[in-house]
Amino acid sequence: MRQLHLGVNMYNAGIHAAAWRTHDDPFAYLDIDYYRDLARTAERGALDAVFLADIPGLREDPRVRPTLGLEPTVLLTGIASATTHIGLAATASTTFNDPYNLARRFSSLDHISRGRAAWNAVTTYDPVVAPNFGLPELPDHDDRYGRAEEFVDVVNALWDSWEDSALVGDRRGDLADADRIHTIDHRGPHFSVRGPLPLPRSPQGRPVVVQAGGSEPGKRLAARTADAVFAAQTTFADGKRFYDEMKRRAREFGRDPSTLKILPGLCTVIASTEAEARSRKAELDELGGQEWAIARLAANLGVAPEELDLDAPVPEHLLANLDEKRGSRGFARAVAGYAREGGLTARELALLGGGGHRYAIGTPEDIADTIEHWFRNGAADGFNLMPDVLPSGLETFVDHVVPELRRRGIFRHDYSGRTLREHFGLPRPPSRHEPAVRAV
Amino acid sequence: MRQLHLGVNMYNAGIHAAAWRTHDDPFAYLDIDYYRDLARTAERGALDAVFLADIPGLREDPRVRPTLGLEPTVLLTGIASATTHIGLAATASTTFNDPYNLARRFSSLDHISRGRAAWNAVTTYDPVVAPNFGLPELPDHDDRYGRAEEFVDVVNALWDSWEDSALVGDRRGDLADADRIHTIDHRGPHFSVRGPLPLPRSPQGRPVVVQAGGSEPGKRLAARTADAVFAAQTTFADGKRFYDEMKRRAREFGRDPSTLKILPGLCTVIASTEAEARSRKAELDELGGQEWAIARLAANLGVAPEELDLDAPVPEHLLANLDEKRGSRGFARAVAGYAREGGLTARELALLGGGGHRYAIGTPEDIADTIEHWFRNGAADGFNLMPDVLPSGLETFVDHVVPELRRRGIFRHDYSGRTLREHFGLPRPPSRHEPAVRAV
Repeated sequence: MRQLHLGVNMYNAGIHAAAWRTHDDPFAYLDIDYYRDLARTAERGALDAVFLADIPGLREDPRVRPTLGLEPTVLLTGIASATTHIGLAATASTTFNDPYNLARRFSSLDHISRGRAAWNAVTTYDPVVAPNFGLPELPDHDDRYGRAEEFVDVVNALWDSWEDSALVGDRRGDLADADRIHTIDHRGPHFSVRGPLPLPRSPQGRPVVVQAGGSEPGKRLAARTADAVFAAQTTFADGKRFYDEMKRRAREFGRDPSTLKILPGLCTVIASTEAEARSRKAELDELGGQEWAIARLAANLGVAPEELDLDAPVPEHLLANLDEKRGSRGFARAVAGYAREGGLTARELALLGGGGHRYAIGTPEDIADTIEHWFRNGAADGFNLMPDVLPSGLETFVDHVVPELRRRGIFRHDYSGRTLREHFGLPRPPSRHEPAVRAV
Repeated sequence: MRQLHLGVNMYNAGIHAAAWRTHDDPFAYLDIDYYRDLARTAERGALDAVFLADIPGLREDPRVRPTLGLEPTVLLTGIASATTHIGLAATASTTFNDPYNLARRFSSLDHISRGRAAWNAVTTYDPVVAPNFGLPELPDHDDRYGRAEEFVDVVNALWDSWEDSALVGDRRGDLADADRIHTIDHRGPHFSVRGPLPLPRSPQGRPVVVQAGGSEPGKRLAARTADAVFAAQTTFADGKRFYDEMKRRAREFGRDPSTLKILPGLCTVIASTEAEARSRKAELDELGGQEWAIARLAANLGVAPEELDLDAPVPEHLLANLDEKRGSRGFARAVAGYAREGGLTARELALLGGGGHRYAIGTPEDIADTIEHWFRNGAADGFNLMPDVLPSGLETFVDHVVPELRRRGIFRHDYSGRTLREHFGLPRPPSRHEPAVRAV
């Protein structure tokens, strides 16, 4: 029977901007033990993966919100030894990295974690990043995706540069079979890369590739190359539309659509009663102030915060043509979906959907209802959870929602494999240089 | 009393090319537990640091020698949790990295290890690397060092971008003081970087900076910016000359010369008797064949292996003007030193000094004699150990040479601090933005 996939986004103190204000140590998000404990909790719930978002720059206002600080591949390596099964998914930008170094770093993480690495390939939409890398502003959206298409191909080619059978290990003869280690000799508009990598193929063959883009080129890239998509839809209707579209697109690339997992983000606020959950959310909103949320909504809509009438719905003209603006189009469209279906004021929308992901607020049964509804009715293969406050929001999920999902027969009781590919039910790809693959 | 500093180079299966042939598992060098065990052994001996060399490319012939495979910052992060005191020094290239990403990665390692990170800044001399990064060949030596000078400055500025006092953590007020977080607004010939980093200053303030260059621009860079130099001299006379020169150069930059540690590489072959040690070395040479060693010597001399008469000393004309050739000049000059003083044949030289570091072969007392002689007579502040075979060569060192060095009063019995800066006796630098520093 088809099983749900669940990741958890270890977003600093929690996805709610005020989460750090509830911590005894507001700087816990800098401590490796904090993440190790989160990952162990997620593993106790047999979740598929822990996930780290990333922006190589100081985006958040440091007065009111922790930053995505520790570099994700390094941070996840620090977690690997504290866990044995859970997948380790790190975001890294195709715009602000080099494919050789990135391919090697994720291959290293896959070796060190014994097959649990995933790369969330993003093009980076935040304009604050570009000047850290010598650029006055971000390359155009299409340029970024042109580079991303080529970047992902180069990385995959490098991951295949050693055949599995290149390892010989004959102590009186050869360590490796040089004929099974291949240059990639890539020459394209953005990159020229000879290869091979300096290390053998990793346990998963290729680390899992995730993408999050919701724009036209983002969806094309994901349909062609990703194993999973971290989607951003706020309503079931939008979720189902996106799900169907991505499965169709995967099919058009000749892929088995079940090998492309669609995992929307799901912000959670969980309590024993719905009223308690709502009041918990309201307390966090109160604690955090509203400015950050309104600023983020405005940024996603491409306007200044002052231009929004906070007590009226967002006007239609701001929701139209989001594609013509810079920034993260998927997020912007998810916000628009919420705005259209919910009939919310701009303020309510800001507090609920500023990040562009669905908020599920209620009892463990309520959360399980949302998850089951999307999962059984073709809007999701699983979710990337974004608890309001960490670690408590994750602990509650593991202790109360996971058992409910198991009762409903849609979530594993324990891991049946060791690698992230195995958790996702994805085959281990052979290197393109293996004779059986070359012969096709 | 002045104390010795000791690091150990965790060079795959050991510095001897045949080391892997003595391992039960020839691919142990891909296993994180192998490195964790090495680091724990080094920590048992109260060594200052473990060290990883690096080349982002496949340099070694994979048939006969393991590669420097796993990416060093990721690998050291995987070791951090298995240890509590030992420093973690990773090599990373200034030619093939970006300063913003690198500064952030080492700051992250310093946070995760609670103050034990060191960056060995190299310009990368191996021509095999360039085509992995879109370049037909390496930039010229001077160009590489021009970039390196600016790269190190940018990284240090980024490490200073958050003042220590930027952390507020007022749960009803501000998380951080935005006035104490600074852009760096660097504009130079190679880089344009705005900053700040997205994470607070790390435990050491700035991770320790190491350099290995032996050329004129390499020495200048090290004298100005490094906390330690991994030197490459094969004879005491050359070692003393280099030591004196570097201390003088540091003084010329207005530095206290004791804050620049000179740590030559020392290859070790240790046994109960000298004869046993020599026969151990001969067995390894026999096991590995000589081709790799001769090829490396030839590469360092800038000639084809066929051009060398193996049973005669290396001719003077090959030893002269090494500076005009590409490649690692420090290594080449160290080889030349050995050749001149030792009167060795090219074959003997290849088997002893191909890597450009001194070989110490003998009993624990012999090894301690060499170390003490260099240390007490102004040729070294310590050594970067390169055991012939790992882990056995390190275990023998820790169990038999370390106690001997302690008996002689030149090596610590236990750590007195927690950070690598503390092991090295180096002060923790304040951020350049701290009022007390700005006022100078």
